Formats: sequence, C-alpha cells, structure tokens
Amino acid sequence: MMHTPIPTELLTLIDQSQRVLCISHVSPDGDAYGSLLGMVWLLRHLGKEATPAMHDPLVTEFNDLPGAREILSPRRVDGAYDLIICLDASSADRMGDVYKPQKHSHIPLAVIDHHATNTNFGAVNWVAPECAATAQMVAYLADALDAPLTGKIAQCLLTGIVTDTLCFRTSNTTPAVLEVAMRLQDGGADLPDIVQRTLARLPFAALQLWSLVLPETRLEEGVVWATVRRDQLQAAGLKDNDSRLNTILSTIIEADMSAIFTEKIGKTGEPAVECSFRAKPGFSVSELAFALGGGGHPPASGCTLEGPLDATVARVVHLLQDARRTQAAHRGRRQATT
Amino acid sequence: MMHTPIPTELLTLIDQSQRVLCISHVSPDGDAYGSLLGMVWLLRHLGKEATPAMHDPLVTEFNDLPGAREILSPRRVDGAYDLIICLDASSADRMGDVYKPQKHSHIPLAVIDHHATNTNFGAVNWVAPECAATAQMVAYLADALDAPLTGKIAQCLLTGIVTDTLCFRTSNTTPAVLEVAMRLQDGGADLPDIVQRTLARLPFAALQLWSLVLPETRLEEGVVWATVRRDQLQAAGLKDNDSRLNTILSTIIEADMSAIFTEKIGKTGEPAVECSFRAKPGFSVSELAFALGGGGHPPASGCTLEGPLDATVARVVHLLQDARRTQAAHRGRRQATT
Repeated sequence: MMHTPIPTELLTLIDQSQRVLCISHVSPDGDAYGSLLGMVWLLRHLGKEATPAMHDPLVTEFNDLPGAREILSPRRVDGAYDLIICLDASSADRMGDVYKPQKHSHIPLAVIDHHATNTNFGAVNWVAPECAATAQMVAYLADALDAPLTGKIAQCLLTGIVTDTLCFRTSNTTPAVLEVAMRLQDGGADLPDIVQRTLARLPFAALQLWSLVLPETRLEEGVVWATVRRDQLQAAGLKDNDSRLNTILSTIIEADMSAIFTEKIGKTGEPAVECSFRAKPGFSVSELAFALGGGGHPPASGCTLEGPLDATVARVVHLLQDARRTQAAHRGRRQATT
Repeated sequence: MMHTPIPTELLTLIDQSQRVLCISHVSPDGDAYGSLLGMVWLLRHLGKEATPAMHDPLVTEFNDLPGAREILSPRRVDGAYDLIICLDASSADRMGDVYKPQKHSHIPLAVIDHHATNTNFGAVNWVAPECAATAQMVAYLADALDAPLTGKIAQCLLTGIVTDTLCFRTSNTTPAVLEVAMRLQDGGADLPDIVQRTLARLPFAALQLWSLVLPETRLEEGVVWATVRRDQLQAAGLKDNDSRLNTILSTIIEADMSAIFTEKIGKTGEPAVECSFRAKPGFSVSELAFALGGGGHPPASGCTLEGPLDATVARVVHLLQDARRTQAAHRGRRQATT
C-alpha cells in the first residue's frame, strides 16, 4: 500500500525507548481514542511500558475500549518517560495540559498524524494526509514493526477508522482503508460491535430536540438550514447540539449546501451564533467559513459569529446562497467546456 | 474466502448459453439493481448476449447505474432466451410479471440469492446466506469465470453491497465483504459516489414528515416507537414512509427495540397498520413478527395488521415490551451463568 513513508528516526526512537507516554488531543473523538490506545497496545506487544494520557475525561461511548480506563488525566502525568508519542493532534496546543513543557521538553516528541494542517511540532513528524485516520497509520507502523494486527490493537484501531470515516462513508475512504479494516477485522476486531457502540447511538433527547427544530427548517435556493435556539436545547434537556442533525441535513437531495445555526452566549456574555456548514461533492463551504473567521475543509466547515440569532442567520444564509450560485455557475461553465 | 460453493451446473449452464435473460425482484432495492446489472456486464464480458428485466419501473437513485436504462419491463420480455438467471429473489413470485411460465418454463432457470429463506425454485440454485449481498456472490462468480472486477461490473456490484449493508454497518459485514469491496474499489468502483447516490439521499419532504411524527414519538420500557398517519404523509406530500426514520429510531441509546407504525388502507378498504420492527444486538423482533403473520430477521422484521391505528399500536407496543422484558431476563440469566 502506498502511504507517506515512516521516518526511520521514528522506528529508531521506538526501538530504543523503554517508557513511553502516549498523548492524543483535546475534545477527543474515536480516532483520538483508537489511535492512542492502539499505539499503547502495540508498544506493550513490543515489550515497552506504555502509558496513555488525555486532557479531557473519558467519553462514555469509549468506556469499553481496551485500556480506556487506564488513560491518565493531566495532573497524574509526570516526567519519567524516555519517549512521548503524540497521536492525531495537528498542533502542540491540541495536547492540552497533558504536555508540560517544563517536565517534557527534554524528552523526544514523536508526532503521528493524518491532518494535512499538521504544524510538525515534534522532533520527528510522520504526517500522512492520504490516510483516512491516524489509526490507519498506526496499523502501518505495526506492520513495519512486525507486530500482528490482532486482539486489543485491532479493536482500538478499527474504532478509529470507523469513527473518522463514518463507517467508510467519507470521500477519503480509499481501497487502502478497506484493506486495513479487513485485516483488523480478520485479526478479531468486531465491526458490528464498534458501529453499535459509536455511530449507532442517539439519545432520545436528541429526537426531542429535532421535533422542535425541524418544523422551522428551511430549503431555499439549494441551501437547507436549521436553527437551534437555547430554549429548545433546554426543553430537550440537552447541553449541546450533536453533529447528527447536520449529517442528515447534508443528505437532503434538493440542497447543495446545508447549515446548522446554534444560539450561544459569547465570551463577553454577548449573543453569538455557532455556524456549521456542509457541502455536497462539487461544492465547497470552506472559503466562506475562512472569510467569517472560522475554518474547516471544503465539505465541512464552521465559524462562530457574534450577534443576535435571527439577523446572523439571515446574513449567513444569503452568503451561502451567493456562494452556491457562483459555484454552480462555475460548475456549469466547466462542464460546458469539457 | 469461504462461501457456499458455486454449483458446477451453474458454471456449465452459463458456459453453454448464448442469450441470457437476467431477472431481479419486485420492489427493487440496491442489491436487486446491483446484482442484476453486475451479472449482465459479467455475461457480456464473457461474450454473451445479456438482457436485464424487472417487474417495476426504474427507481430514480439507480438511473445512472451502468445499464439501468436497458432494463426491460415485463411486457417487452419475450421467450427467445437459452438461459434465465434470477438474482436476489427468494421465491418465484418475487420475479413479478417478468417471468411468464408459458414462455419461459422450458428455459433453464438458475437462481442466485443470499436469502436464507430461498425456496430453491430454479433448475439450479446457488443460495449463500453467509454473503451480505447477492452482488457479493456475483463477484465470486466472476472470479470463478476468470472475469476481472473492473469498470461497469465493479460499480454495479459495489452498489449492491453498499446498499444491502448500509455501507458496512449491518452485522453480516464479515471480513470477506470488506475484501470484495476493496477489490471492487480497486477495480474502479467509486465508493463515495455510490454512498452519495444511494444512502446519502433524503427528500426535503421526509424532514417535513419527521417534524410532524417526532413530537409524538414515545419511549417506554426500552421500546421506542413512532406512528405515521395518512394525513401526515399527505401534509408532507409523500406517498409512503421511507426506512430512514426506522434506522434512526433503531439507534436510540435508551431502547432495545423500535417500531414504526404506518397507517394504511387494507385490501378490503378496511383500516390497516404496517408495522416495522428493529432490535438491537442481543434482542430479536422476528418471533413477534412471525406470530403476527409477518416475516423478517431477528434485527429487522415487520407485519401488516388489520384494525384501527391507535388500538393496534397500543396492542403491538405491549407485545414488544413483553418480548423485550422476557429477552432481557433471559439475557440476564445467561450472563449470570457464564
């Protein structure tokens, strides 16, 4: 399989290490857990002492991932390591309080990540944006270190791949992703169990929120959008809006772009709106998000804007419709000339 | 890969054929289209004349599948064939009006299907319930006939696999499924395109239906259910309820079983209720569906009952709650003794 080569320095560092601290990122997702714990079990298979650590407390749906309950909180992390491996974090600040410069800056830091935006903040950096998940990279590392993709390693790594690709639905799901997934499943990873524990989990309160939000969902000029007000979240008993509703809006046949606007209180106590955008293949919402001070990728991006809900929604919907019209015209011209 | 062996008679029949009629089932899904058209392109690769036919008119989302527009309606099907291959149909009646006994009964009929309930209605029957899709079987047939899994064959077969497994989310997604999917993608099938065209497609009207149905969705004793009334379908401008809402209800964390009840008019003009059930792993709804005169599998089953909506829903919800309670107690005992 073709992928960005593993730096030989990384293999040497692992080979020479005895006590390894493994760190993943703040606001952890399934690939943060999967790549972190897969790496820990890989190192243990190689006879190393390996310790996982994370800034945030354990998320319920990853409770039962092998090793999840061993993950240290920042205050329990000391400096007695001879190698630090950071997984799935695109910049140093994403390690949160786990990485303590005064304790850790003398220890070699190895970065393993699949984000194209990685800042190469390690002493050694292996960044492979062609991989759909950092867990996929750890599988290639296991291959390079002659470790089998079985048991706990397999369950952790497939969890990372399944969650980051929404179970092979994202556009970066190459044949190489399916090949690794097949080997992990052959090694004992339980794909249906992973799907049940991670993707197929919706709290009943989310349905109650949807029943309040959907009646006001609008579709105009190829853009579909929904607005989530604070009183609606409260009525449903939810603290925050999850990403599922956005995933559903992004599948509406009649729309090329979708948006969810969530009412927030800004840092200064002023009203604010969290905007989350999605675009169908052939369209892009990242330029608009960047222009509004946010970030993301062409198919999924977002930003947070200060201002009252209704006026902000009206303004941003117009910007989305303008962007869609321009992009559709451009597509039309491109298709006409090819 | 291990699978039910291909009968040598099937290979012989294909080898000796010149003009082949390929049939799939009524109310076609993605595997009906994918296995049918994949088979047609496989036969054409082998130098045969192959004609696809189906009882129902073409479904929009499969319009662009290679060969879809060549599919004959029943009235255009004649008898000038030397082999008929029936794909993904578990019994003869599932072929609808395409199969005309007076014209076709003298022609050898070969059945290729992955349903465990197949009635073996062909002269030769290859039934492989361990396969997640009939399209997966056609890939093995191509292997046996030394045909490459490329181009049009690959696109059709991966469409069948993706739709029947909800993109690798169903519990029958074995490593063998991922292995075939990887080979089809390597052969040129466009996985993200297939996901966009089939699974990631929701009409805006469906959201409007959900906004009417969700406020009355209930969760009690581990069973979550929704009721779809005829006036709600009409208000949303829909003829029928799609399966997406059921898929969402089946992911509710607090429920082990889910149901959608859709109000219908029975064959005699009397009120009727279409019941669709889902169960989480470790639970089963097929016994209840069978007891009520329906059918299906442990995780997904259904039935149609005569009677007024509200009374029928109340009765069936009680039966579901009873079944869940019994199964949960049984699970408890089993876990206590192991």
